[in-house]
Amino acid sequence: MNGAESLLRSAAAAGLDVCFANPGTTELDLVRALDGSGVRPILGLFEGVCTGAADGFARMAGRPALVLLHLGPGLANGLANLHNAAKGRTPVVVLVGDHATTHRGRGAPLEADVEGFARPVSCWVRTSAAPEALARDLGDAVDAATTAPGVATLVVPADCAWGEAEPAGEAVRARVAGGAVARTAAALTGRVDDRAIADAAGALRGPAATLLLGADALASPEAVTIAGRVAAATECRLLAETFPARMERGGYLPAIPKLDYFPQDATRTLTGSSALVLAGVPAPVSFFAYPGVPSEIAPPELPVHVLSAPGQDALDALRRVAERVGPPDGAAPPPAGPGEPAPGPLTLASVGAAVAAAQPEGAVVVDEGITASAGYWAASAGAPRHTLLALTGGAIGWGPPAATGAAVACPDRPVINLQADGSAMYTLQALWTQAREGLDVTTVIVANRAYRILEVEMARAGIDDPGPALAPLTDLGTPGLDWVALATGMGVPAVQATTSEELLAALGRAVAEPGPHLVEAVA
Amino acid sequence: MNGAESLLRSAAAAGLDVCFANPGTTELDLVRALDGSGVRPILGLFEGVCTGAADGFARMAGRPALVLLHLGPGLANGLANLHNAAKGRTPVVVLVGDHATTHRGRGAPLEADVEGFARPVSCWVRTSAAPEALARDLGDAVDAATTAPGVATLVVPADCAWGEAEPAGEAVRARVAGGAVARTAAALTGRVDDRAIADAAGALRGPAATLLLGADALASPEAVTIAGRVAAATECRLLAETFPARMERGGYLPAIPKLDYFPQDATRTLTGSSALVLAGVPAPVSFFAYPGVPSEIAPPELPVHVLSAPGQDALDALRRVAERVGPPDGAAPPPAGPGEPAPGPLTLASVGAAVAAAQPEGAVVVDEGITASAGYWAASAGAPRHTLLALTGGAIGWGPPAATGAAVACPDRPVINLQADGSAMYTLQALWTQAREGLDVTTVIVANRAYRILEVEMARAGIDDPGPALAPLTDLGTPGLDWVALATGMGVPAVQATTSEELLAALGRAVAEPGPHLVEAVA
Repeated sequence: MNGAESLLRSAAAAGLDVCFANPGTTELDLVRALDGSGVRPILGLFEGVCTGAADGFARMAGRPALVLLHLGPGLANGLANLHNAAKGRTPVVVLVGDHATTHRGRGAPLEADVEGFARPVSCWVRTSAAPEALARDLGDAVDAATTAPGVATLVVPADCAWGEAEPAGEAVRARVAGGAVARTAAALTGRVDDRAIADAAGALRGPAATLLLGADALASPEAVTIAGRVAAATECRLLAETFPARMERGGYLPAIPKLDYFPQDATRTLTGSSALVLAGVPAPVSFFAYPGVPSEIAPPELPVHVLSAPGQDALDALRRVAERVGPPDGAAPPPAGPGEPAPGPLTLASVGAAVAAAQPEGAVVVDEGITASAGYWAASAGAPRHTLLALTGGAIGWGPPAATGAAVACPDRPVINLQADGSAMYTLQALWTQAREGLDVTTVIVANRAYRILEVEMARAGIDDPGPALAPLTDLGTPGLDWVALATGMGVPAVQATTSEELLAALGRAVAEPGPHLVEAVA
Repeated sequence: MNGAESLLRSAAAAGLDVCFANPGTTELDLVRALDGSGVRPILGLFEGVCTGAADGFARMAGRPALVLLHLGPGLANGLANLHNAAKGRTPVVVLVGDHATTHRGRGAPLEADVEGFARPVSCWVRTSAAPEALARDLGDAVDAATTAPGVATLVVPADCAWGEAEPAGEAVRARVAGGAVARTAAALTGRVDDRAIADAAGALRGPAATLLLGADALASPEAVTIAGRVAAATECRLLAETFPARMERGGYLPAIPKLDYFPQDATRTLTGSSALVLAGVPAPVSFFAYPGVPSEIAPPELPVHVLSAPGQDALDALRRVAERVGPPDGAAPPPAGPGEPAPGPLTLASVGAAVAAAQPEGAVVVDEGITASAGYWAASAGAPRHTLLALTGGAIGWGPPAATGAAVACPDRPVINLQADGSAMYTLQALWTQAREGLDVTTVIVANRAYRILEVEMARAGIDDPGPALAPLTDLGTPGLDWVALATGMGVPAVQATTSEELLAALGRAVAEPGPHLVEAVA
């Protein structure tokens, strides 16, 4: 048994059964060791596809994803989506093949500071020192990724992979096997003390309190349901963080709006609250800074109470608050049903409404619509039960890969990727993996042919005339991207829609047929 | 005048007149400052396009390229091609917009360790501290990028860009203006001492000496010509480094084969030499390590002589060696003319020969053919005069961006990108920039629908049966990529060729018509 085999068998024992990979020469032994390991390899044609897919997979599977990349530059190509995973507290174990230890320091073309690349996105980084260390190193990586939770990066020199190693001993195997799944749940078990519960319950009984929920409190239907009962009992307002890593929505779950993106809007939303209670989320800060605008969203006079910090058990905390505030008045309202798109030429509002109207029960919606998803959020609150995944780290080019990974994790659930065109161009290679694996992903490209968010920012900054340099840097329409051609070129059937009627028909077909589809919604 | 304006006017004064950009909200003031600065912005739809284009631009323009990226993740997406630039000693100045200094430390989604991302590829990294520092910081970045030469990264917090600054004083402006172009030449002026000249001349007179030339000795036609005269006078053999950043070739220049890629082949090539003389190149090491194969290419018994180290003036050193060894016997042979492709279905050899036969006088050939360019190198030695750019850092996905940048630098020269399909998929977004800017780039996609180099490596490792995991990780044919659709989707006219006749006809049309074209050569 060589080091690579001992490593991958330990990974399989830890429940890391899928590996999103773009390997090269230094990883050949790791690739060979996949055979017989029980780990299923999935090829991405760009590393950002692999890392984004790992993020989407782990968010949906509830266990860490495994990634295999090629040296420093391969890792570098995957960093942006690892940044998103780190910000979303997604457990991901990244294996990076490196040159043999004997080959270091000679300036070979691909020699690079692999650990240096890894550090900004990783909660844990190690370079293995010997073949027999790989099984233990993998165990430590899984521990780190699931405890933080976050990205753990293990650099595997080629000679550690090809060198002889003992089979991982029972002790290592048992530790690894017990680790991953258990810890992902365990990461949320930090119990909130009674004082915080009493404090939050008191604040929520105030005349106009706001309960802001983060992914820890949004990712389970139980927590969302209980939050709704607390709101009904206390008349507090519920808000979701702007970009939740995962949120259960729709059906009988309470409709929870999200906190506004722009800081002035968000501050206005919170102004007049008697208290802000935080469940599984830090105090909100603005996405970007603007001249003269505070970074903190909460008005300075607003009392802030922490019910649970990220990583604490938000479900348990909400349950205990609910017990204190008593039962709600009356039953929860029945589902409102999704909105209906206005007929005729597509607008951002009608694209959002059409997606909400078309999504089947149990859909996983991967939302990287940027400006294009504004209409979707409201329209879909009353849609059938679904899971929403949002862009946690702001690094665009996440949606198509994340949808890919979510579909691998949930083969029985339809996946819908509501996707802006500018960000889709970053990682369009994900469509090929969807085609190869036959994944049931419907990609809705909202083709506004612009970096619209920048145009919005310009307007907000009072720039009426963008000038000769600025205008072309936000315009994606010269030449126009033909998403039907791009998708077809990667094996994904695609159509264009320009009206609500066309979009509804196209989505209906895409959702009904198995396998990937793309709809270019020109809005 | 704000900080952004003072920075960009200083950049223009330093001769950095093109900026490859993918900006976001934190760079809006830098984008606005492009107007009136004299710096031409060129949009890439992915940051790896911007950084690879900067590399290709600077190699051809002989002055640094400027890049503008968005926060840590935007920089991360550009790192792989900055790695290539760093390994190729290409001067590139990277501007990264960051959050305002007042916004740091609050955990905003896009907050990241920008300097940490930058360090592995940069010879110089700085975060500006104030608006009035930006002009000077830019000057220091240009100095660093042109002196090393390499990648200098300047992180620009948004409030430094939008804050008020004095116009850059005359002293800063003069220093900046004098710096860039002068230093790029100056970086090669380290003069070799007479002892090294005498030593190299003596070694080259030996019975079977080899003169290995790096990019410093290959990038000027004078140096290549003189190397040919030295070879004719001493009967030494000339070899080019395997991946030269830039090499002048064809026409009356001597045909110089490149050192083999695989270490055993390369060592065999050098075995039997009486001496190895290095001009502008370090002692060769193998690209990757293999079990039981030394990393050093030169056999241990082979005497190695350094005529000039990278960064020293190789042209001057070759001139002085030529004076010592005397004039060659007879005149240089006339150009051999390019090879002719065998008719019928395409092979790797006939693709290379067809490109060599089709390339017009003065072409810039960007070679990321990987296994597909083996046939091209030999066939093109006798082609009309041209410039070849090779992949210096091994980070694939460099060719289409580099061709884009080379075409921006040399609008009067046709650019041909000989490109493997697997690596092209990393940065296919470059085609859109070629279409938008109307660049005269002909992309030849050698569509073998595989990571062929990995299949070759497997065969070399004696793996006959790649196994169920390994085979799919090297197969890009399921589903097949349709490059005609992909190119068309980004506005680049494209055709497929399956025979030499079709390929020659397609290349003839592509080269004759202005603007970008793509030919998918199925081989």
